[in-house]
Amino acid sequence: MRNLTLMTDFYELTMMNGYLKCDMADKAAVFDVFYRGTGGYSYAIAAGLEQVVEYIENLHFEESDLDYLRGLKTFPEEFILELGKLRFTGSIKAVPEGTMIFPQEPILTVKARLFEAQLVETAILTLLNHQTLIATKAARLCECTKANIMEFGLRRAQGADAGIYGARAAYIGGCRSTSNCLSGKMFDIAIKGTHAHSWVMSFPDELTSFREYANTYPDNCMLLVDTYNTLKSGIPNAIKVFDELKAAGHKPVGIRLDSGDIAYLSKKARIMLDEAGHSDVSICASGDIDEDILLALDTQEAKVDIYGIGTKLITSYINPSLGGVYKLSAIEENGVMVPKMKISNTAEKNTNPGEKKIVRLVDRESGMALADLICLVEDKIDDSKPLTIFDPHHTWKKTTLENFGAVELMQEVFKDGKLVYKLPTLSQIAKYSDANKSAFYPEYRRVINTQDYKVDLSDTLFELKNKLLHNIG
Amino acid sequence: MRNLTLMTDFYELTMMNGYLKCDMADKAAVFDVFYRGTGGYSYAIAAGLEQVVEYIENLHFEESDLDYLRGLKTFPEEFILELGKLRFTGSIKAVPEGTMIFPQEPILTVKARLFEAQLVETAILTLLNHQTLIATKAARLCECTKANIMEFGLRRAQGADAGIYGARAAYIGGCRSTSNCLSGKMFDIAIKGTHAHSWVMSFPDELTSFREYANTYPDNCMLLVDTYNTLKSGIPNAIKVFDELKAAGHKPVGIRLDSGDIAYLSKKARIMLDEAGHSDVSICASGDIDEDILLALDTQEAKVDIYGIGTKLITSYINPSLGGVYKLSAIEENGVMVPKMKISNTAEKNTNPGEKKIVRLVDRESGMALADLICLVEDKIDDSKPLTIFDPHHTWKKTTLENFGAVELMQEVFKDGKLVYKLPTLSQIAKYSDANKSAFYPEYRRVINTQDYKVDLSDTLFELKNKLLHNIG
Repeated sequence: MRNLTLMTDFYELTMMNGYLKCDMADKAAVFDVFYRGTGGYSYAIAAGLEQVVEYIENLHFEESDLDYLRGLKTFPEEFILELGKLRFTGSIKAVPEGTMIFPQEPILTVKARLFEAQLVETAILTLLNHQTLIATKAARLCECTKANIMEFGLRRAQGADAGIYGARAAYIGGCRSTSNCLSGKMFDIAIKGTHAHSWVMSFPDELTSFREYANTYPDNCMLLVDTYNTLKSGIPNAIKVFDELKAAGHKPVGIRLDSGDIAYLSKKARIMLDEAGHSDVSICASGDIDEDILLALDTQEAKVDIYGIGTKLITSYINPSLGGVYKLSAIEENGVMVPKMKISNTAEKNTNPGEKKIVRLVDRESGMALADLICLVEDKIDDSKPLTIFDPHHTWKKTTLENFGAVELMQEVFKDGKLVYKLPTLSQIAKYSDANKSAFYPEYRRVINTQDYKVDLSDTLFELKNKLLHNIG
Repeated sequence: MRNLTLMTDFYELTMMNGYLKCDMADKAAVFDVFYRGTGGYSYAIAAGLEQVVEYIENLHFEESDLDYLRGLKTFPEEFILELGKLRFTGSIKAVPEGTMIFPQEPILTVKARLFEAQLVETAILTLLNHQTLIATKAARLCECTKANIMEFGLRRAQGADAGIYGARAAYIGGCRSTSNCLSGKMFDIAIKGTHAHSWVMSFPDELTSFREYANTYPDNCMLLVDTYNTLKSGIPNAIKVFDELKAAGHKPVGIRLDSGDIAYLSKKARIMLDEAGHSDVSICASGDIDEDILLALDTQEAKVDIYGIGTKLITSYINPSLGGVYKLSAIEENGVMVPKMKISNTAEKNTNPGEKKIVRLVDRESGMALADLICLVEDKIDDSKPLTIFDPHHTWKKTTLENFGAVELMQEVFKDGKLVYKLPTLSQIAKYSDANKSAFYPEYRRVINTQDYKVDLSDTLFELKNKLLHNIG
């Protein structure tokens, strides 16, 4: 396993050295990871926790890291020695991977010695931000079509990890196959793919190339039909080869369109294939597909059974970062945890103080999510009687809920340095995520004119926040 | 070193198995990496070759990879055994990292057994596409300001590699420091950073937090002034602490603004600092900065000496992929290399056939780049007499060059499987890149209304392309 302990922003180290010098390194501190907004995205699908667990379990500086830091001549030897001894001894709570989450909700909370809690900020953000971004993008794309979506983006990913873990995150979000063999091996994801234009070009002509492909994979023959001319050459040649396969007792699989007008070509292709007696052959489309194109293709009744999505999925094109942050919410003073908040000119940027939890309020009859409440850990939500919640920025907007259940979203992951969470398999995560998404009405999930889901504060948290705001402001 | 051999699209393997079955695996093939366009970017800065070299040198399947592939029950054992023996035995040419490149220009060419050349497609694209993207974004940002830019994006990067190699690429593009300690260690990049809002919030008040920071780093004291109120609290407190530092014989370094109106706040801050006798203290600004914001801040005469750029740089926000491709350009038939091209309805998507090179035509007096020519490898450009070049899509657009020199851009990297290229250090790459960029007039480099730089085809390549187009089309 790669050691990412030194993969941290330099200021974490300068602060840690400062805390050590000020005798504050052992103070307990609480930090929350959350999204202020989610870019253009209305919700997010939490992902990346498994990689955070691996990082935390493996947290230790190598001798060569310490030598490198010594060489900077910025830090006293006492600090370097302290780094050498560092292991994670704190506690972490988090929402399970696959959970649908909203802005301001703490999706992971670290409670640890200030010295440790500060160090792990950067890597935790890098790992969660990336996979949550891609899982969310995948979920959004899946929202726009009934067809299956394959993740095809490795070559356009922002480096190897973006491809490898991007495929994992896309799986969580709903794309249940990938072209990336290494991700297939690492995470047991189905791998898919047939041939490229170069296969066709490596033979004297297209028909020969199709015949040779069919000959190699008679029972798994999907042909790319757009190397020269889709309607005049690609599809007619594919049909010839499918006829031959069928005559020999095989079942042809499909064709792939990778350029041109997908709506027009897929409908033409469907007619040509059907007329030739190949109505069970699938049509796969790829090439710069995004949410808006999926919706437009649906409106035009494109005949696509499977989409292969690369660049736009693996980079979350248009919105390549969700901007997750890691903010101090409490610190120990004289043995007591004191809530802290950052005050900003922009009200939405004020953080929520204290140790918190998220409670999802769910309709007892339909099982559908009604609203989330960000609460203090000690809050008890009594779901046996009606509850009135209110918008924290527009407090006159109130709703009274009845006949609801209150579900806590965060789980204990590390307790005093020890892993206490049983990591689910990727397919368990995917099942959980599918169920989680289904509990939200489509108006919260759709990608255009999405309805805002209510995320309110408990009364006690609202009061604490106001108290701190008025004391300081 | 991580083994990325299995990090390939599944279709590379299905094709390789097909080539083996068709007795074509040993045919020599030539593939070019190039950009069709560069998204909204007019040029690109090539980067990532060093990581391609590491990948190629380390190319071999692990036993566990072979077991995984066996388990798919898609391939015959003969193919799996062939994969087990695979090493790279071909040749690679590429432009050096830091070279300014343009759409259609082959920036890397693989000539190898079809079996090997097909496998390495995906990883080569992933590695080059990512670093070229970030180096280009960094160069564009640097084009928009005279201030220094620090790379600060690790937490918003698309995974660990995107942060680690993104910092390397940003360095090549012109950002000569990073917050990422691991990149600092791996690539000898200067690491920078001071403290976060959490430092300020961990103390009873802002002034105490500043004093403690100054106490820890008296000769390297840069203070973040926007935790509570920049003008009313942050800067006045910073000035107090700078006064104390100065009185004790130290030289304060600077302040950092991370939110609010940077133009207004930086000008106010400059006045406040100057009036307090701290005119040698720098102002650093960070927070969602992009090309357009840098240009706008320049117009408003913002007083910023250093920018820290995170999200927008490390993800190449707005344009998070350059879309590099890997296309077959020649294949061996009966012992002779036969040029190949992909034909598309869109003229710009037709590929350039044959084994090629790029020649940069440079003015002998000014040293400035005049145009690039994509040539066949055997072409000789005679720079002793005038040369007329023409736009390959609008052939009536002609230019005659005189008094120019012809510089070949591609270097041999691997020859028959052996590394023959001496990898430059990162600082050598950066120097080369700076010189390379300086040879382009600002109108080719500016980020708004950029002038198109001429990239034409040699007469012989143009004729070959037309011959193939008319034969096939």
